[in-house]
Amino acid sequence: MIDNPRRRRVSRRRGRAGRTGRGGRTGTPDARRRGIVDEYATWIDRNIPYFEILDSEALELIEHNADLVLEEIGIEFREFPRALKLWKEAGADVDGERVRFPRGMCRSLVQATAPSEYTQHARNPKRSTIIGGDRTVLVPAYGSPFVMDLDRGRRYATLEDFRNFVKLAYMSPGLHHSGGTICEPVDVPVNKRHFDMIYSHIKYTDKPFMGSVTHPERAEDTLAMVSLLFGEDFVPLKTVLTSLINANSPLTFDATMLGAATAYAENNQATVISPFLLAGAMSPVTVAGTLTQILAEALAGMAYTQLVRPGAPVVFGSFAAAVSMQSGAPTFGTPEPSLVVYGVGQLARRLGVPFRSGGGLCASKIPDAQAAYEAANTLQTAALAGVNFMLHTAGWLEGGLSMGYEKFIMDADQANMITVLLRGVDLSENAQALDALREVGPGSHFLGAAHTLENFETAFYRSNVADNNSFEQWEQDGSLDAAQRANGIWKQMLRDYEPPPLDQAIDESLVEYIHRRKSEFEDREY
Amino acid sequence: MIDNPRRRRVSRRRGRAGRTGRGGRTGTPDARRRGIVDEYATWIDRNIPYFEILDSEALELIEHNADLVLEEIGIEFREFPRALKLWKEAGADVDGERVRFPRGMCRSLVQATAPSEYTQHARNPKRSTIIGGDRTVLVPAYGSPFVMDLDRGRRYATLEDFRNFVKLAYMSPGLHHSGGTICEPVDVPVNKRHFDMIYSHIKYTDKPFMGSVTHPERAEDTLAMVSLLFGEDFVPLKTVLTSLINANSPLTFDATMLGAATAYAENNQATVISPFLLAGAMSPVTVAGTLTQILAEALAGMAYTQLVRPGAPVVFGSFAAAVSMQSGAPTFGTPEPSLVVYGVGQLARRLGVPFRSGGGLCASKIPDAQAAYEAANTLQTAALAGVNFMLHTAGWLEGGLSMGYEKFIMDADQANMITVLLRGVDLSENAQALDALREVGPGSHFLGAAHTLENFETAFYRSNVADNNSFEQWEQDGSLDAAQRANGIWKQMLRDYEPPPLDQAIDESLVEYIHRRKSEFEDREY
Repeated sequence: MIDNPRRRRVSRRRGRAGRTGRGGRTGTPDARRRGIVDEYATWIDRNIPYFEILDSEALELIEHNADLVLEEIGIEFREFPRALKLWKEAGADVDGERVRFPRGMCRSLVQATAPSEYTQHARNPKRSTIIGGDRTVLVPAYGSPFVMDLDRGRRYATLEDFRNFVKLAYMSPGLHHSGGTICEPVDVPVNKRHFDMIYSHIKYTDKPFMGSVTHPERAEDTLAMVSLLFGEDFVPLKTVLTSLINANSPLTFDATMLGAATAYAENNQATVISPFLLAGAMSPVTVAGTLTQILAEALAGMAYTQLVRPGAPVVFGSFAAAVSMQSGAPTFGTPEPSLVVYGVGQLARRLGVPFRSGGGLCASKIPDAQAAYEAANTLQTAALAGVNFMLHTAGWLEGGLSMGYEKFIMDADQANMITVLLRGVDLSENAQALDALREVGPGSHFLGAAHTLENFETAFYRSNVADNNSFEQWEQDGSLDAAQRANGIWKQMLRDYEPPPLDQAIDESLVEYIHRRKSEFEDREY
Repeated sequence: MIDNPRRRRVSRRRGRAGRTGRGGRTGTPDARRRGIVDEYATWIDRNIPYFEILDSEALELIEHNADLVLEEIGIEFREFPRALKLWKEAGADVDGERVRFPRGMCRSLVQATAPSEYTQHARNPKRSTIIGGDRTVLVPAYGSPFVMDLDRGRRYATLEDFRNFVKLAYMSPGLHHSGGTICEPVDVPVNKRHFDMIYSHIKYTDKPFMGSVTHPERAEDTLAMVSLLFGEDFVPLKTVLTSLINANSPLTFDATMLGAATAYAENNQATVISPFLLAGAMSPVTVAGTLTQILAEALAGMAYTQLVRPGAPVVFGSFAAAVSMQSGAPTFGTPEPSLVVYGVGQLARRLGVPFRSGGGLCASKIPDAQAAYEAANTLQTAALAGVNFMLHTAGWLEGGLSMGYEKFIMDADQANMITVLLRGVDLSENAQALDALREVGPGSHFLGAAHTLENFETAFYRSNVADNNSFEQWEQDGSLDAAQRANGIWKQMLRDYEPPPLDQAIDESLVEYIHRRKSEFEDREY
């Protein structure tokens, strides 16, 4: 038999994951054997290549142009003097709030000290994850003011909705991370929501999560709360938060985001520096121009974190949708943003930092075929592009304005499929199945073959949402569509939910902290 | 500015397509400038790499194992003595109906004479296409006894439905081919349907199409009809049909398919030799085992066509879905068959023949989110895998049992997106958009920029199905889901349909031929 290098590669990876003491994709031998997604999977170990669409000359062109943008046009760091001071000290050309960078400066700063991967610790060590390298970490959607389900339609999100999604993500083995602002709990004042959101991520799950970024003080509150959870000595040394810092594109970072980024980087917490672009409105109307701007913005933002604290974990983020040139509305699942994601993945790997992009994006208001085509297109793209931190994997509706219960269930099913896809092809002697072919031979079938019986539990991903029955059986079962089936699934999951244990003293200290801090200032809706 | 090899590549391709005198993806300069899909596109010229998941050692392992299957187990050619005679003469080991092949024999036969690409002529020369190489040809779904639309639900298909889908495919710029048995016109006797189907493909469209394969006589009728259309001298020299020959997996070809394949190959018409596998039932329950069987079956079938007529165009076909190990039902859009498609693409390119796979596959009975997730997953996979002839691109529902009107419209929209995706990234100076970045600068927006105004017509694919409006606008418009919008689109298309001109003498000769032939034998329902 031909010796097979991929089997060796798999073995090496299993060994490596084993040494970290965390799950990776390997999980328990039993879970692996059953071919399903391990309940304690903390990332997907990629065993297929990246899909790369640009050759090295094209990448050099984009990099050249991004350097030109940084040198000639520059980036504005608004209403945040500390950033301007750090840039001046580092040798950049600071003109008012505009910072121009000598060619290659941002790249050098990033490559000198930003880690290529980092561990984000969870309160349950079995849930700690590693972001970067050949790993993919799948994360729920983020940031919607509304929620949507089939029973109640679209409405403002509440803290109860937020908790529900934390619980659903906790129970979804394909999601490795609890995310951040899964939806905005609008029944809580804006300036006090972060306490309840962070507490929910601590209390109702033991997966890793993201910190508040809407005000530097809220970042400090987040840091205080994770210090209570992990211990004050642990947090400034270890990374327990990965938080989302959006650029104010084009070519601008504002004080809110810079303040939060500074607070987190100072404390060795990870930030995802994300140019957030609706191409055609916030970036040029072309793929190449958008790639250039993304690289310039991300380089400047990531380099800034390294000025604040060299070595602070930082992720090359990207969120790019295309604006409809007819209506100005954002569109999703279309080909041009897919090309952007493939390109950014290549640029991030050349830079040597982890890469973030979405996810199950769509413009649809409901969990219909539009939502699904668009989500599948963006999920497949992100998976094949090699996204390390896939924000918005599950739940996203209506361009991010709404978090869908049924959409979440359907996307989480797709997340499981991504896990299986990225595992690649098993080429073991058993998988080659020559004995099965010998046993069955021409014109018979494999259903009762010994090899099939030995392997059927590992074989073929089983969706919990899809109906693969006959038309007649499907009619007998009520002629439900996928969203209606998903509706039943999330309700059952919430009924079945059991919280992971949390040390009572820690829980009490968190509740006490929140109570005290909330009483220190007035409610505000900004 | 860095010189850019991709621009040269695009230019070279444009030149090549121009020399063929057909459209390719290039179309008129004006259509290309507008960034939409050219009405006369006859294939997609791929300008991004293939996604390849197996390394060369893995591919050699599969090839080694397939050769072993062909040598040791062999293939049955049932109830078709002519095939056995040809194999015996060629030096194979013929034992009853079982044929075993000396190692490498099938591969050598294929590589010696099967063309790497071929032109399929259409009655409108502007619609002639080339199958193979870096091209992708998108083809409607094939073979369903039922049709489904939102108004009438699921019902047996009729000739009227068949004609409707021919018209819809004719009007869909992203579909380059009219397909074959788009749906079964069950209101016409089984043994006379082929006349009406072939006539519909001639009369109501001028795109290329597929021949009947359900009986050797029906293949001969198809050949007679295309001889009337193209001229008797043209057909045996030029290829005007690409017809679907399914293997009777595992490891068997039956007399019906062999008879049709023989008739077509003898007349230099193309056949797609397709192992049709529901993995776990008709092939081993693993990806590697299924790849091995597909390669063995396809090699034997393709080699057979080369024995019939060396040089006859032949396509490496593949249709693989996974069987649910719980219910035995076929499933679609799951990761394992995606891995199979990526692998088969690589095997076909190593062999040097065109590659066929599906398509917008799904198990859903209705055009819901399940249908869309599954279709998008399979469409993306086929596009990135480098499928040359993508059967089942549009319309497929219910595991191929039903052809959906709304599904067709939604998939055709995805076909357009695949066209844009495979074009890759424009890296021209205009696309680099440095002047736009200079003009707009930090903190402003690009909507009114000169570069945006100059390029907005080329920018960003516009779906005709997606609703990207605000929630409020969408509500005002009736809160329609994607399927409901697609329902309006196909009805409007059928109202707008205008037939392409057909020479009246040819039309009359076809009608006369059909009339005469139909009267020569009794109706039969098999």
